[in-house]
Amino acid sequence: MKCLIIAAGKGNRLSRTGIPKPLLPLPGLRLIERTILTAKQAGVEEFYIVTGYRAQQVEDFITQLALRRKLKVHFVSNDEWEHKENGVSILKAKNYIKEDFILLMSDHIFEESTLKDLIRGSRDKGRVVLAADFKIEENTLIDLNDVTKVQVNDGTIQNIGKTLKVYNAFDTGMFYCTPEIFTAIEESAQNGDTSLSGGIRVMASRDKAGVYDIGKRIWMDIDTPLDWKKARRLLYNNLIKPEDGWISRKINRKISTRIFTPLLLALFKRITPNIVSLISAVAGILGGIGFILHLPVIGAIIAQIASILDGSDGEIARLKKVQTSFGKFFDALLDRYTDSFVFFGMFLYVISSAEITTLLGKMAVPLIYWIFGLALVGNLMVSYTSAKSCLLYTS
Amino acid sequence: MKCLIIAAGKGNRLSRTGIPKPLLPLPGLRLIERTILTAKQAGVEEFYIVTGYRAQQVEDFITQLALRRKLKVHFVSNDEWEHKENGVSILKAKNYIKEDFILLMSDHIFEESTLKDLIRGSRDKGRVVLAADFKIEENTLIDLNDVTKVQVNDGTIQNIGKTLKVYNAFDTGMFYCTPEIFTAIEESAQNGDTSLSGGIRVMASRDKAGVYDIGKRIWMDIDTPLDWKKARRLLYNNLIKPEDGWISRKINRKISTRIFTPLLLALFKRITPNIVSLISAVAGILGGIGFILHLPVIGAIIAQIASILDGSDGEIARLKKVQTSFGKFFDALLDRYTDSFVFFGMFLYVISSAEITTLLGKMAVPLIYWIFGLALVGNLMVSYTSAKSCLLYTS
Repeated sequence: MKCLIIAAGKGNRLSRTGIPKPLLPLPGLRLIERTILTAKQAGVEEFYIVTGYRAQQVEDFITQLALRRKLKVHFVSNDEWEHKENGVSILKAKNYIKEDFILLMSDHIFEESTLKDLIRGSRDKGRVVLAADFKIEENTLIDLNDVTKVQVNDGTIQNIGKTLKVYNAFDTGMFYCTPEIFTAIEESAQNGDTSLSGGIRVMASRDKAGVYDIGKRIWMDIDTPLDWKKARRLLYNNLIKPEDGWISRKINRKISTRIFTPLLLALFKRITPNIVSLISAVAGILGGIGFILHLPVIGAIIAQIASILDGSDGEIARLKKVQTSFGKFFDALLDRYTDSFVFFGMFLYVISSAEITTLLGKMAVPLIYWIFGLALVGNLMVSYTSAKSCLLYTS
Repeated sequence: MKCLIIAAGKGNRLSRTGIPKPLLPLPGLRLIERTILTAKQAGVEEFYIVTGYRAQQVEDFITQLALRRKLKVHFVSNDEWEHKENGVSILKAKNYIKEDFILLMSDHIFEESTLKDLIRGSRDKGRVVLAADFKIEENTLIDLNDVTKVQVNDGTIQNIGKTLKVYNAFDTGMFYCTPEIFTAIEESAQNGDTSLSGGIRVMASRDKAGVYDIGKRIWMDIDTPLDWKKARRLLYNNLIKPEDGWISRKINRKISTRIFTPLLLALFKRITPNIVSLISAVAGILGGIGFILHLPVIGAIIAQIASILDGSDGEIARLKKVQTSFGKFFDALLDRYTDSFVFFGMFLYVISSAEITTLLGKMAVPLIYWIFGLALVGNLMVSYTSAKSCLLYTS
């Protein structure tokens, strides 16, 4: 599947940052980097990227990215970006794309599954399909003055535009396009409207514009510094996993997504998840040593820090979209060994602490043996049971 | 896929056992039970079973089996079994099977994968395909005087029969048949030959008989008491897994496949693998208690017995063809807990044994802590690593 991404505009409201909008940094990835890598995960194989404002800088960045992540990328130049609307950017690709394709905006963030479903969905031949958001009441991430509104009736677009008064959905900026879109935009342009919405209106008038309902999924258009802030928060909040336990949700994940991970990404731009796994393991070992050295409070604090850091490796992997099986395996192994070592350190501390053994009385020693034996085995068995059952019951 | 199984003959050379040949007991399953369940695993959905000698007894048994294992079974009666050859048994099913089907002999044992590949293999329309064994030199499981020989040229059967002088393969008794086989046998019968081989020769004369090379896979035709003995040994030997470790291959598996599993199957006909898992776990716990009670030799012997028994549950599951995900999970969990308990029992014994601690000198106690900590964690980590890596790398 080919994908056309519009990255030609200046993004006036964000231009004071001095960075072309597609290169705006978000946690782990630049804005367009996230768009491209998410699209790749969703099944896109080849990219056509329309550049305009600061084209060279944007293209240099993407060329580097393409080399690093083995992407097939072509650039399409739009020298009219300053004076015409976004439909013109699409027209520039007319000679390169002769089949159905995906159209994305470089300044939108979206979920991989939304695009995956848009690509896989069934559709009538020759029909453009817009991924539409029908959560017009609940969606607080959009700017009502700026969002493109859509009036949909029975799965078909009736009207589309920013100034629509009657509408029931938002345009998420994700389209499944057929080559007919080019002639539709040309027709609209002849009537003075060079916008993509103009082209979609032409398609709609031919009953060739449908929608795909994105359901509960979220997306964002990043136009203002406030949007940018919201997007950062959104991306970090999305790192919380549904399977996270109580401690993780209430404490660890909050600290890792708000402090540790942002800090690591800010301090070490090129940090990899496996390095973070290793740092977390070293911290865990230090925590265990703390206990062995009869410094239980320091040991406990370091072990807790290790436990929080242990969330950051996966968070960085997901933010940077560099999840690998090896990374998951490496992390899981280090975690088990580190946890066990911390337990063992605690055991050595407790068994050699005169205070505690006196407190526990005559049966202190066997009691401590049993408690730590059960803790050590029980802790490993949680992970083992989970892995084994997934293995046996999902294949 | 439908499957026709011939189970009409008397099996003279085995008849002194007093049991109709299809009901001959093999480890875990009767002869025809194994044929049926293996075929089901390979993808057969519906069975047509031709009965003759002691038909009622055979049918009663299979009806019970069908209820227990949810099989779709039809019986086809052959009252001419005593005086005519096996082609007649096939002809009796002519009115019931109108499409391609699998033809099997009730007295052959074979590997599931052989039949699976025979079913899935590509073939020319209207062609009968025989699963042929080209290992005519290496195969020591067959009786050269009795086996049906095949002369194959360029994947096509040239000739087939027991008395063939020139041949390059054996007939394994497994066929992918088209309904044309019925008219071919009829034609052969008109010329006085009521055998299946006669029918195949007719098909071959029309260039409609091909072969599928079973490669290194093994199979057996069970005709004599010696065959029966060989088959028992073969089935037990097949329980040795390629991933079994050294201790398992050299000691545990030998004892479990030669003594424990045969004994359990002989003593408790209805024993289930999960019960054996439980018995093995109880034995392991007793072994651990032996150590705790300062009876290390008895503890070690019981723990070793538990370890051998731990092979029997899977062996019985495979022999009876009742492997389940739950069974594997249950066994794996019990094993980990049992192993850990044995280690813990050893630890309690060693740490409280004045002899050993004196022997180890001043550092005895921390040394023992570290050794058992490493052993406990290391042992669990072997299983965890294996499960986790399978999970991450096979999906």
